[in-house]
Amino acid sequence: MRTTTAYRADAPGADLRPTTIERRELRAGDIAVRITHCGVCHTDLHALRSTDSSAFPVVPGHEFVGVVSEIGSDVDTVAIGDPVAVGNIVDSCGECPMCRAGQQNYCDSFPTLTYGGADPETGDRTMGAYSAEYVVRADFAYPLPAGLDPAGVAPLMCAGATVWEPLRHWQTGPGKRVGIIGLGGLGHLAVKFAAALGAEVTVFTTSSAKEQDARSLGAEAVVVSTDAEAMRSARGSLDLIIDTVSADHDLGPYLRTLALDGTLCHLGDLGPVGVDTMDLLIGRKSLSSSGSAGLPATREMLDFCGEHGITADVEVLPSAQVMTALDRLAKGDVRYRFVLDMSDL
Amino acid sequence: MRTTTAYRADAPGADLRPTTIERRELRAGDIAVRITHCGVCHTDLHALRSTDSSAFPVVPGHEFVGVVSEIGSDVDTVAIGDPVAVGNIVDSCGECPMCRAGQQNYCDSFPTLTYGGADPETGDRTMGAYSAEYVVRADFAYPLPAGLDPAGVAPLMCAGATVWEPLRHWQTGPGKRVGIIGLGGLGHLAVKFAAALGAEVTVFTTSSAKEQDARSLGAEAVVVSTDAEAMRSARGSLDLIIDTVSADHDLGPYLRTLALDGTLCHLGDLGPVGVDTMDLLIGRKSLSSSGSAGLPATREMLDFCGEHGITADVEVLPSAQVMTALDRLAKGDVRYRFVLDMSDL
Repeated sequence: MRTTTAYRADAPGADLRPTTIERRELRAGDIAVRITHCGVCHTDLHALRSTDSSAFPVVPGHEFVGVVSEIGSDVDTVAIGDPVAVGNIVDSCGECPMCRAGQQNYCDSFPTLTYGGADPETGDRTMGAYSAEYVVRADFAYPLPAGLDPAGVAPLMCAGATVWEPLRHWQTGPGKRVGIIGLGGLGHLAVKFAAALGAEVTVFTTSSAKEQDARSLGAEAVVVSTDAEAMRSARGSLDLIIDTVSADHDLGPYLRTLALDGTLCHLGDLGPVGVDTMDLLIGRKSLSSSGSAGLPATREMLDFCGEHGITADVEVLPSAQVMTALDRLAKGDVRYRFVLDMSDL
Repeated sequence: MRTTTAYRADAPGADLRPTTIERRELRAGDIAVRITHCGVCHTDLHALRSTDSSAFPVVPGHEFVGVVSEIGSDVDTVAIGDPVAVGNIVDSCGECPMCRAGQQNYCDSFPTLTYGGADPETGDRTMGAYSAEYVVRADFAYPLPAGLDPAGVAPLMCAGATVWEPLRHWQTGPGKRVGIIGLGGLGHLAVKFAAALGAEVTVFTTSSAKEQDARSLGAEAVVVSTDAEAMRSARGSLDLIIDTVSADHDLGPYLRTLALDGTLCHLGDLGPVGVDTMDLLIGRKSLSSSGSAGLPATREMLDFCGEHGITADVEVLPSAQVMTALDRLAKGDVRYRFVLDMSDL
């Protein structure tokens, strides 16, 4: 085993503290990455707030960029010194129908998560990228698009990929009317992507204060979702809704804003939800869900961002301020993603 | 007003009794149809079992065939003596986005139902086709395909159209793996259609006794849905599921039999349902719902049935035995649809 430095929480409720952790020695297809920036995702908060002591220790962090510092014997796709980006999936079986379809995120054996997952060979718990170094299969590291700010790329690797894949799957483009629920880390990238893809974008938000921001990001319309009259006026107006809200909420009013054959795709696990089948039946609407992204979609997203100069809107903090970032994220006090600068580690 | 004979229930719990009812005089676009056969749909049972006395009197019947007996001044699409078929929608606004898209079944002003609806001009409650005659806009009457038994066509007009539209919408054809839940009036037609369209058909049923029937209708596989092991073996195996079951049931086990990007489409109003978003997320699956069919899909279905010689499997009873038909339908004692022969009325 090799060692590196990382911010680790050792028990439920414990703060993250810098400490020395072990990483695996490089396997034939592995690379080591000197991490320069790591995004702070809501998932990190959830992991740290877990009351399950068996889930600890935790090193969060699953959207990061860095520079290749070492390569395994079989690696010829990247070289030492190359800038790369890594997301929340670092391995998958590669053989099941999902993997063969390029949907490693739905791998039948469950993909290996960047942290809190199980190393496919040893079963050891994976430790995330709030760290100076990560060891990863080269197939799950992506070249950093030229010309993009690395700090702004880090959140593309989870938040960006997660919104990109369903936007593309449901053919977001000119003539499509796309609604985005929530204007946070995921939502602000969904607005940028959908607008750059040529769609007409409507943002649903609980806060009318976000209207100007939404329009600056590319939205043509903003609907305050607590305004029942505004929601009624929006009925039947959208082809696709990407729902980025992770808290429990009533899907009915949003389903009713879909047009014929429209789809509401929720991102991530919302647990059990209730839906009135009449809200689906009238107009043959669909409720779907999507989580993370496969390798091809992630690659495509990075290419698109490179071509269109798109990055996340970030606030960069030195990694030593990780607890400040998490506290402010918990209060929603961020536009739109914190990124930790790991050069101080 | 003109008069005709019909089976009418005058209050909740009352039997249907033959009586004289009024029909509107023909408007310019109307035709009168001498009804020869009318299917007995589960909806008819529900309507008669309503405890809401304001919903009575009821004349059920919304899938029928007959012969044109009179035409309005503006009708040139059919002539007296032509055999025609009518389903459960007899009018719609014609102007809303849904109607313009050929989805009269989702008309923004709600389509006029064949019975229990409101006449678009007078607001009078519509009375159904357990009757000797019906007056209908010619646009909502379809030529009977040549060579098909009229009794077997009647159920195509509700059960058939209702399963056809979603099967076609989700591109049922060669290479598609289609599951059908329930082998009743709707389900048996869904199996016939999906097989004739070239799909691989799996039937889900609670009764292993239906296996041979399912295979005779065109199914390649039968899964007994109460067999947890069989359900597990079917995981990830289907592209589309058409769910014809109107009683409350757990959708999770069926969603888990869908493959990547699969859709479970329930037919009709199931009320509020619970769904675990993880059952949608893993494989980006969709839950949808569909009800009835628009004019273009109904026309297409009848053409397809004419070309392929498809009709419903029916048991024909003289209309005087309508109460026997309803009682046996309530017990599930029918393969697969009762049709009333109206020549005795």
